Amino acid sequence: MQKQRFALLALPFLIAAAPSNDAAALRDAALKDDTAWKITEALTTEIGPRLAGSEQEARAREWAVAKLKSLGFKNVRIETFDIPGWERGEERGAIVAPYPQPLALTALGNSGATPPEGIEAPLVAFPNVAALQAAPAEQVRGKIVYVGNEMHAAQDGSSYGYFGAVRRSVPSIASQKGALAAVIRGLGTDSHRVPHTGITNFEAGVTPIAAAALSNPDADQIERIVAQGKPITLRLLITPRRTGTRQSGNVIAEVPGSDPSAGIVAIGGHLDSWDLGTGAIDDAAGVAITAAAAKQIMDAGRPRRTIRVIWFGSEEIGGNGGQAYFDRHKSEPHAAVGESDFGADRVWRFETKLNPAAAPLTARLEAVLAPLGITKGNGKASAGADLGPWVRAGTNGIDLDQDGLRYFDVHHTADDTLDKIDPDQLAQNVAAWTAMLAIVANAPEALVESRD
Amino acid sequence: MQKQRFALLALPFLIAAAPSNDAAALRDAALKDDTAWKITEALTTEIGPRLAGSEQEARAREWAVAKLKSLGFKNVRIETFDIPGWERGEERGAIVAPYPQPLALTALGNSGATPPEGIEAPLVAFPNVAALQAAPAEQVRGKIVYVGNEMHAAQDGSSYGYFGAVRRSVPSIASQKGALAAVIRGLGTDSHRVPHTGITNFEAGVTPIAAAALSNPDADQIERIVAQGKPITLRLLITPRRTGTRQSGNVIAEVPGSDPSAGIVAIGGHLDSWDLGTGAIDDAAGVAITAAAAKQIMDAGRPRRTIRVIWFGSEEIGGNGGQAYFDRHKSEPHAAVGESDFGADRVWRFETKLNPAAAPLTARLEAVLAPLGITKGNGKASAGADLGPWVRAGTNGIDLDQDGLRYFDVHHTADDTLDKIDPDQLAQNVAAWTAMLAIVANAPEALVESRD
Repeated sequence: MQKQRFALLALPFLIAAAPSNDAAALRDAALKDDTAWKITEALTTEIGPRLAGSEQEARAREWAVAKLKSLGFKNVRIETFDIPGWERGEERGAIVAPYPQPLALTALGNSGATPPEGIEAPLVAFPNVAALQAAPAEQVRGKIVYVGNEMHAAQDGSSYGYFGAVRRSVPSIASQKGALAAVIRGLGTDSHRVPHTGITNFEAGVTPIAAAALSNPDADQIERIVAQGKPITLRLLITPRRTGTRQSGNVIAEVPGSDPSAGIVAIGGHLDSWDLGTGAIDDAAGVAITAAAAKQIMDAGRPRRTIRVIWFGSEEIGGNGGQAYFDRHKSEPHAAVGESDFGADRVWRFETKLNPAAAPLTARLEAVLAPLGITKGNGKASAGADLGPWVRAGTNGIDLDQDGLRYFDVHHTADDTLDKIDPDQLAQNVAAWTAMLAIVANAPEALVESRD
Repeated sequence: MQKQRFALLALPFLIAAAPSNDAAALRDAALKDDTAWKITEALTTEIGPRLAGSEQEARAREWAVAKLKSLGFKNVRIETFDIPGWERGEERGAIVAPYPQPLALTALGNSGATPPEGIEAPLVAFPNVAALQAAPAEQVRGKIVYVGNEMHAAQDGSSYGYFGAVRRSVPSIASQKGALAAVIRGLGTDSHRVPHTGITNFEAGVTPIAAAALSNPDADQIERIVAQGKPITLRLLITPRRTGTRQSGNVIAEVPGSDPSAGIVAIGGHLDSWDLGTGAIDDAAGVAITAAAAKQIMDAGRPRRTIRVIWFGSEEIGGNGGQAYFDRHKSEPHAAVGESDFGADRVWRFETKLNPAAAPLTARLEAVLAPLGITKGNGKASAGADLGPWVRAGTNGIDLDQDGLRYFDVHHTADDTLDKIDPDQLAQNVAAWTAMLAIVANAPEALVESRD
């Protein structure tokens, strides 16, 4: 790799003139680069959990600035914004009757709290959201609501969307029907007693009640007792709190381009994580992959377009960092955007959403990505939670989709730790992003959509 | 299966006369029997965790008596004994410096306690027990000791013995050298943040200090920071307590034999479990497999020898139930003994330790077990923690060894739950035990060793 880099540096004119021709060579060199692994290891070890708005997230920003500067990026800076703060408290649960035993559960983001002494109440169980919605309020009032789901792994992660309503909506619906609390079978595809957190939303005017996710083995246990027809009583102690306004921020770094009029290529991942794990697959990997790929391009010579690497804050609580970036930068011309936020398993598909002028990119991407085992998708790029606003506003979007079959085993749990990342698959991601950047950042086409 | 059983019931004379000839048929019928699954499901659901000496273990005994009677066993009874009680309290840990973050840990059985406000102290790390043993006391005094290990899965479970010293001995050694507390990389082969508990032993006269196991991802985190050469400070709050004498007990059930002089065939598993999970693989499966196999023999007709099924109490804290059974019954003639206490994955090997008169059993066992994919071992049966005293005293022992490659992923963790058991592999276990019992309980040889 070192030899390869010297060779490239010896040909500055060729590189500056037609760097996109080197996309394949850069891609192959990236397969041997361990920059992404080192970033992921350092962020998960030296910062660890970094909840949106927390002191740890602030430390992560300072760490990120130092890291990105040391990697050689330019214009490294933090852009702060405010968010509504929430933090976890105690969380304990148990079956009191008919078969006393503890439960493994965790509060959902935005959960309300039980009284400090906890609550003990009958459980009323529903197999899914529709059954809860159909239930009369008197069946629910004064009780703890349980709602199941049957999430299974899907390569494209679509099960998260399909089954996600159980987490997003159940607590709000349950509160409206007078429930004391809501527990769900968490959105996870594993069988470990490490429950999956994630944000829930209470509709305007609805009182936030305590809301928690059970691990799959615990949900199985509840459902076995329900199947016996026995009345169930639960005890819950869940004491998170809303903290008022907290500061968060995005960390931005650049590889300056030679042609400012050609627009910015904005890529990144999110720096915040849930508080239970160390945020390795979600999303240390994403910030590491995109920065490592941008560095590959930077080290090979100046690209036509400026590559902007954005490590977003507060993605987990509703894409606040992405929205803050869009609001602040929407007048700047962006040529293309793409986020890495689906772990670190191998990229198996690329998706595009391109304006007509950018259409020729597809064939060039297909050619450079196929040797990595990456296939062309259906033209439905979203650019993730953080850069999605740009695609929805008409900017070109490119997704590099990771295999999602393992992702929801670990997602939003204490198990999201470094050991879940395979260095070889991580390097395949960096190679894919490097190849994509080599094509897109140097494309001769006019990629910036004129808006009016 | 039902049809098969009717066929056998229609031939009572043949069965009574030469039931060992039916070992293959009984074995094959057992492959379709779900009695063991139902026992495992019910015990893990309706009792759940059942720590030695606890109220839950007492409930498990009452549950077991009712279950064994309902299955048709005779002479069902409880034999109580006293044990030294210990119960878990709070357990929390965190890295305070250089990189503040919480740790997933759990107290080891017999652990002492920190003060109620916890402790905060420098960490001193050793790669293994030998390195701790070699360290001068001044390197350890007033600190929290960490000791690692490199346990990997082994099909025969031998890694537990090889690496087990880290759990059994480190806290005692650390206390003798003046450590405030000891944390180890737990004895587990998984990568989940569900730490592995298990008993530790303080030598006579050594003050019990707080002793806990980290999950593998947490141990990795500690070792990465150690590798950076940074001083580490930990905070620990671990408050288990010794409760004084508690009652435990064995539950015994029998299939009466036709020839009391031929000796008893004693088999079983242990009813107690660690408190973190629901004790599915350790050892609901073992009590279920042995009872289901004995029921297969019982339902086919009266065997020559009495089969005694023993569901032992307090195995986890040192084999107390097994010792109590031996002490109480050692004057009764036992023809052979065997315990199932290594999960529920498929049996891959059988081991024997046979007296000369019993030697012909080996070939018959080999013939009936080979169709289940079970191979002959090396003549080193131990009969497990609970029935081992009999083998050591000269009684014939037979082990049916399960595949141990997954066992220590789950062993002694909160993850020991019903979903870890594969019903097909469980049924293969029952078939193996049924075939073994058909041979041994009906063997024409004199199997009781005369002692003098």
